[in-house]
Amino acid sequence: MNHSLLILSRHAADYERLLSGAALPALSITATADPTHLSADAARFDLVFGEPALIATVLPWLTGVKWVQSTWAGVEPLLNPALRRDYVLTNARGVFGALMSEYVFGYMLAHERLMFAKRDAQLAGRWDPSPPGSLRGKQLGLLGVGTIGSALARTAKHFQMRVKGFTRSSETSSEVDQYFHGDTVLFARDLDYLVCIMPNTGATRHLVDQALIDALPPRAVFINPGRGSTVDETALASALAGGRLAAAVLDVFHTEPLPADHPFWRLPNVIITSHTAALSAPPDIAPLFVDNYRRLIADQPLRYRVDFDAGY
Amino acid sequence: MNHSLLILSRHAADYERLLSGAALPALSITATADPTHLSADAARFDLVFGEPALIATVLPWLTGVKWVQSTWAGVEPLLNPALRRDYVLTNARGVFGALMSEYVFGYMLAHERLMFAKRDAQLAGRWDPSPPGSLRGKQLGLLGVGTIGSALARTAKHFQMRVKGFTRSSETSSEVDQYFHGDTVLFARDLDYLVCIMPNTGATRHLVDQALIDALPPRAVFINPGRGSTVDETALASALAGGRLAAAVLDVFHTEPLPADHPFWRLPNVIITSHTAALSAPPDIAPLFVDNYRRLIADQPLRYRVDFDAGY
Repeated sequence: MNHSLLILSRHAADYERLLSGAALPALSITATADPTHLSADAARFDLVFGEPALIATVLPWLTGVKWVQSTWAGVEPLLNPALRRDYVLTNARGVFGALMSEYVFGYMLAHERLMFAKRDAQLAGRWDPSPPGSLRGKQLGLLGVGTIGSALARTAKHFQMRVKGFTRSSETSSEVDQYFHGDTVLFARDLDYLVCIMPNTGATRHLVDQALIDALPPRAVFINPGRGSTVDETALASALAGGRLAAAVLDVFHTEPLPADHPFWRLPNVIITSHTAALSAPPDIAPLFVDNYRRLIADQPLRYRVDFDAGY
Repeated sequence: MNHSLLILSRHAADYERLLSGAALPALSITATADPTHLSADAARFDLVFGEPALIATVLPWLTGVKWVQSTWAGVEPLLNPALRRDYVLTNARGVFGALMSEYVFGYMLAHERLMFAKRDAQLAGRWDPSPPGSLRGKQLGLLGVGTIGSALARTAKHFQMRVKGFTRSSETSSEVDQYFHGDTVLFARDLDYLVCIMPNTGATRHLVDQALIDALPPRAVFINPGRGSTVDETALASALAGGRLAAAVLDVFHTEPLPADHPFWRLPNVIITSHTAALSAPPDIAPLFVDNYRRLIADQPLRYRVDFDAGY
């Protein structure tokens, strides 16, 4: 049986080159970055590979689709209940751990090493011997311990930190020193750093709420490279403005780009990284499609299948 | 036999508390941060523990000294040929690797993640989605592979970098992918990051010279948490000003504090960290004295003995 693949991605040319290089059998490929170019023959594609936000705009016309491989981890645009769900949806997993580690530990080290204060001193021509801190012995709390959380836990151990993990029920990473379920307040006490890497589901909405934020010690730094929807932004901004939290490093927000009048822009202890924590890089993502395509033609189950109801 | 220890350190009180807590046998302790307080009975101390710069000022009066444990890695002040060498000198080693890793990888990640540029964008109220880089696959060159270099190599492997090591002859770290000896130019080609962690000896003076700097690719970042004396500062400043080198992160200098008229202050691609890369922390350093004292009273050889002629 021959398969007809539509690549729908900002990186369409990169993905077409990478998949062509993989010489996948019985596969014809059409690649575009612009879904408005799709003609009436959209129904002929049984496979789609690309960004959920783009795919969602043309899903009603992709009537022949059997499998969609997302280039992103987050598939929210395809979870819209108004859209069809009569196909297998797989997302990108297992490839963001290394990048997320670089993001999270880069900014934790920037905080410990007083990088921005030392930079300001330098710009003022001032020799600044104030002693930096260290990650050793500090407590890291992971809100969510999937493949990304496990990667963060490994890096935390490399830097001799203690790791607390909060999950619904799983306890899969052996690098987490202590697991918590249900009660975020117990989990949050004594954390030096709280990192949120939860998917966006109904159950995670505003998981970082007033109660959790109040439970954090004033020295704590909150880092969110996960999803904006997990955070009560009003409660967070108020805690940061009142010094009840040391700092926040925020990559994602309820509304992106972050609106110009949002209080986060005016808080000196907030760092805004504009949704760049772990960008999907075609050389990382293309192998996910290749592996799943080989499984498809061998009649094996696809990896990283999304449960439409659970949302991940 | 009873021993009489003089602690001579900015952290005299911390060290006195830590050593008292270790309940070392047959040891009387005198601790001070101010060597001018030493009276004529300085000759009664057979052991000294402290900062080389402080100890050097009173060494002529410490006529009974048999062993000096330095709290620093660098012992230059005690290598002055005008000073006595009729005692065993041991320095601090094996404890700076973790801190140096935090320093070096903190600033490498700051470079990859465009942290300062993103901070400037934020201060201008600008959402900045420019994609950051990653350490994965990048080449790290270690100028010197002792205990600190080995620790850096381990962290580099954690972040999936390639590691080149330059040493006089040793090849002790298995985490170094490729060793170089003698020719720094061959070593420097293709490096993304060059980190200098050489001790200060006659042989390392200006090891980072015009030829080595010219051999680095223009994308390279030079990081020096080692010794200022290893760098030809004029050649480095000129390469940075001319864009022949991407950036430098400098902790140590020929003259410290860095003089106000030094060109490094005015170069936008230089980061100055004011000799704070790996400060000796009493909880790390005290165990070195404790371990060596136990060896001393057991008639075992002391660890980390310095060769006065080699300088390390």
